[in-house]
Amino acid sequence: MTATQVNEHGQLTHLLQLEGLSKAQILQILDTAASFFNPQDGSIVKKPVLRGRTVANLFFEPSTRTRSTFELAAKKLDADVLNLDIGTSATTKGESLLDTLQTLQAMHIDMFVIRHKENGIPQYCADQVGPRTAILNAGDGNRAHPTQGLLDAYSIRKHKGDFENLTVTIVGDIRFSRVARSQIAVLNTLGVKELRIAGPDNLLPENADDLDVVVHRNLDDAVRDADVVIMLRVQKERMDSDLIPTTDAYFAEWGLTKERLKLAKPDAIVMHPGPMNRGIEIASDVADGPQSIILDQVTNGIAVRMAVMSLIMSGRNSG
Amino acid sequence: MTATQVNEHGQLTHLLQLEGLSKAQILQILDTAASFFNPQDGSIVKKPVLRGRTVANLFFEPSTRTRSTFELAAKKLDADVLNLDIGTSATTKGESLLDTLQTLQAMHIDMFVIRHKENGIPQYCADQVGPRTAILNAGDGNRAHPTQGLLDAYSIRKHKGDFENLTVTIVGDIRFSRVARSQIAVLNTLGVKELRIAGPDNLLPENADDLDVVVHRNLDDAVRDADVVIMLRVQKERMDSDLIPTTDAYFAEWGLTKERLKLAKPDAIVMHPGPMNRGIEIASDVADGPQSIILDQVTNGIAVRMAVMSLIMSGRNSG
Amino acid sequence: MTATQVNEHGQLTHLLQLEGLSKAQILQILDTAASFFNPQDGSIVKKPVLRGRTVANLFFEPSTRTRSTFELAAKKLDADVLNLDIGTSATTKGESLLDTLQTLQAMHIDMFVIRHKENGIPQYCADQVGPRTAILNAGDGNRAHPTQGLLDAYSIRKHKGDFENLTVTIVGDIRFSRVARSQIAVLNTLGVKELRIAGPDNLLPENADDLDVVVHRNLDDAVRDADVVIMLRVQKERMDSDLIPTTDAYFAEWGLTKERLKLAKPDAIVMHPGPMNRGIEIASDVADGPQSIILDQVTNGIAVRMAVMSLIMSGRNSG
Repeated sequence: MTATQVNEHGQLTHLLQLEGLSKAQILQILDTAASFFNPQDGSIVKKPVLRGRTVANLFFEPSTRTRSTFELAAKKLDADVLNLDIGTSATTKGESLLDTLQTLQAMHIDMFVIRHKENGIPQYCADQVGPRTAILNAGDGNRAHPTQGLLDAYSIRKHKGDFENLTVTIVGDIRFSRVARSQIAVLNTLGVKELRIAGPDNLLPENADDLDVVVHRNLDDAVRDADVVIMLRVQKERMDSDLIPTTDAYFAEWGLTKERLKLAKPDAIVMHPGPMNRGIEIASDVADGPQSIILDQVTNGIAVRMAVMSLIMSGRNSG
Repeated sequence: MTATQVNEHGQLTHLLQLEGLSKAQILQILDTAASFFNPQDGSIVKKPVLRGRTVANLFFEPSTRTRSTFELAAKKLDADVLNLDIGTSATTKGESLLDTLQTLQAMHIDMFVIRHKENGIPQYCADQVGPRTAILNAGDGNRAHPTQGLLDAYSIRKHKGDFENLTVTIVGDIRFSRVARSQIAVLNTLGVKELRIAGPDNLLPENADDLDVVVHRNLDDAVRDADVVIMLRVQKERMDSDLIPTTDAYFAEWGLTKERLKLAKPDAIVMHPGPMNRGIEIASDVADGPQSIILDQVTNGIAVRMAVMSLIMSGRNSG
Repeated sequence: MTATQVNEHGQLTHLLQLEGLSKAQILQILDTAASFFNPQDGSIVKKPVLRGRTVANLFFEPSTRTRSTFELAAKKLDADVLNLDIGTSATTKGESLLDTLQTLQAMHIDMFVIRHKENGIPQYCADQVGPRTAILNAGDGNRAHPTQGLLDAYSIRKHKGDFENLTVTIVGDIRFSRVARSQIAVLNTLGVKELRIAGPDNLLPENADDLDVVVHRNLDDAVRDADVVIMLRVQKERMDSDLIPTTDAYFAEWGLTKERLKLAKPDAIVMHPGPMNRGIEIASDVADGPQSIILDQVTNGIAVRMAVMSLIMSGRNSG
C-alpha cells in the first residue's frame, strides 16, 4: 500500500514531496512557520508542542547542516531528539533498512527525519510504518527536498509578497537536483507568473517540457527582468565528472555576477540553498550583497521545519 | 572492595548482572516498567523523575541500537544525556579507563551506561565510583546483558503470564552469548518450569551442567512443546571462524522455520534480541509471523530501562 | 572591527581570553560559579536561565572531555545543545569557516563554543558575528584556554583562600601551552604573591621576561615553598618531536614525585588540567595523593562554564 502524506481530513501526516500538496496546504505551512517568529525581535520562540515526543534523525547521507536544522526545529518544539549514525553501526551488522526502521519504530519514535541517496526511500518508509509514525523527507536522491522548497517559498513570500506577479529563475544543475524539483513543484502550485530554468544542456532535466517551466540556455536571458534568482550548488560529483568542463568555464557561463544581476529587476532577490561554491556558481560580492537573502533562507528553514513537525503532530493527534 | 548492586535495604544501586537479584527484586523492576505504559493507547509516558540528573552513555563497543534505547529511556525520564564517543578521543590521548571514569564522575554524572567487550568492566567501574554514581551494564563481553534479560522476562510475562508453567527454549550460540547468560539467570530465578538450551556442540557452554538447564543437541527436540522459543543472533565473528560451517548449513540444522515451530505449543511465542540474521538463525516468515513478539521486545526494552534507572535513582536518594 | 569581550557597561559578551579582564570581572565569574553549588551536598544545581537558548559546540579539534564539560554546563542551564562534528561534513563540502559560521548564526544559535588548532579563530569569529551571538573560546592553538584558567583560579581560591599570599608554580611545556598562558594571565590579575614557571629550556616561552613570572630551570627550586604546584600535560606532539628526550628522562628531571612535593609547603595543593600522563609529568601516587585536587578541578570546571554562559547571556539581554 502506498502511503499518502495527507489524510482524509486534508491534514499532513508525512512530508514526502511537494508534488500533490494543494495551495491551501502549502500556505497553511507558511503561515504556521510565520507564527514561530517573535514579532518584537525576530527571534524564533520555543513552543513545547512536541513535549514527550521523540524525533529521530536518520541520515544515510551525512549532512551536519541539514541535520542541525531539523534537530534545532525539534528541540524548539521540546521534542526529544535522537541522532542515529546509521553508517557506523546498524548497517555494519548487516541489518536491512526495513528491520532498522521497524526496530526504531518499536522504540515508539514519533517522527523520522530521513535523508538517503536513493530516490523513494522516504516513501518506502512511510509505506512500512504504522499510523503513529511520521516520515519527513530530508532529501532523497535527486527526487525531492520538500522542506527546502517550502523554506524557499516562505522566503520569497516574505521578501516579495504575492506569487502571482513574480518571475522566478532557477539556474544550474536542474537535472540532478532534488532542490530544484521541490522548488518547481511548490512555485507552480503557488502560481508564480513565470518560472524559468536555465543551465548547461546536459544539466537540464530530460522531462523539462512536462514541468511547466520556461527553459533558457543562456544566463543573461534567464535572469532578465526576474524578481527572484535562485542559484543552485554545483555538486562535487558533477565537477569530478565530464558534465561540467572546468569551474572557471562554468563560472564564466553560468556564474551569477554583479553585472548579470543588473539584468534582473532592480529589487530582485538572490537565493541559494547552500552551501555555496563562491566563484563557481555565484560571485562573492553577489552572495554577500544587498540583494542576497541567502542567510535569511537558513533562518526561515528552522521555522518552516517547526511548522511541518507541529502540523503533522496535530494532524496525527486529531486523526 | 567489590561493590554490590543492592544496598542493605534491598534497593538497587547498580545493575551489573541478573545473578544474585531476588525474584521480588526482579518483579519490582517488571512492575515498575509496566507503570510507564499509558493503559489507554500503549504509549510510553514521560515522567520527569530524573530531571536535573545526568546519564552518560559510555560505549566502548559501538551499538547505535542499544545506545538509543538507553538514551530514549533516560530522556523519557527527563535526564540530561551525554553520549561519549570513547573510541575517538580520550583513548587516543592514552588516558586509562580509570582516569576517564574518575574524570567523568567528577563532572557529577549520576549514572553511567557502560558497554565493553571485556568481561567485568562494569563491575570494575562500580568498584571504583563513589556512592553518588550508578553503573548500568549495557553488555560486557560474553558475561552479562542484564537489561536484555529483564526485557525478555517482561515480554514473556506480558504474553504468557506466570512463569511456573512455562517451558522456555534458548537456541544458538549460548557459549559466547551474554544475552543467553542473563536470560538463564533471570528465568531460573523467576522459576520457569523447564529451561532448555540448544545449539551446536562447540557453541554450548562448558559449564552447562551448573546452569540448571536441559541441554538439547537437536533443534526439533529443543522446540517440542515449548511455550517460548528464543533464537540468538549468530555473531559475525563466529561466521568468520571455524566454529560454524556455512550459514546455509547452520540454517538447515539450527534455523527456526515454520515447520519446526509447529513442534512447539500452538500458542508458543518467538523471541530474538536483534538484530536478526534472516535466513541464518531464523526464517523471515517466522520473524514476521503471528507468533513473533520480536518488535514488542524492543518496545518493552525502553520501559524496562526506564524502570531500572528510576529504581536506582530512588534507591540512591533514600539510601 | 575587532570585537571586545566586555561591553561598555563592563558586562561580558564573549569569552575569548583572560588577558584584559579586570580583577572584579574575574571575581564575579568565580562568585557566580560558586552560586551553582548546592551548599548542602555539594551537587551542581540545575538553573534554567538558558531555557529557549541554543548553544553549539564547534570543535575543530576533537576533545570529548572538554566538549562534555561545556555540553553539561549548557544542559544544566536548560539550553538546547547542538554538537557539530565539523570534520566530517561541512568542511568536506569545501565551505569556508566564515560561511559555516554565518550559516549557523542564521539558525539563531545564541552561543558558539569554539575549539580550533589555530590561534585567533575565536577572536575572528567574534569579529564576524552579530550582536546577538556570543563566542566562548574552548581553546585556540597555543594562545588561550580561558575557562581552564578560570576553573584553576576557582579551585585555588576554594582550597587556599586569598591570592595575595600565594606562591604558584607552573611546570612543563609552558611554551606551547594555551593552558599556561591563561593561567598566567588570570593569576597575575588576581595578584598572587609570586608566580613561577619551570620547564626544559626549549619549552620555556620566548617572551618569558614580559610575563611577570619568575623563571626556574630546575624543578626542586621551582617547587620549594610553593603553595600551589600546577603540572602541565606533556603533549604527544612534543614526545614525537626532538623537544623532549625520552619520557623516562623527562620524568627524572621534570616529573612531580612525592619526594619533590615535600619541598613545597606542607599544605601545598597539586593541580593538573588533565588528561594526565602518569609517570611522565606526574607520579601516580602524587596524582592520587591527599594533596591532589585534580578531580575537584573537573567539578569546578562545570560550575565555572555555567557561570560564564549565564553571565554572558544576562549581559546580552540587558545590553
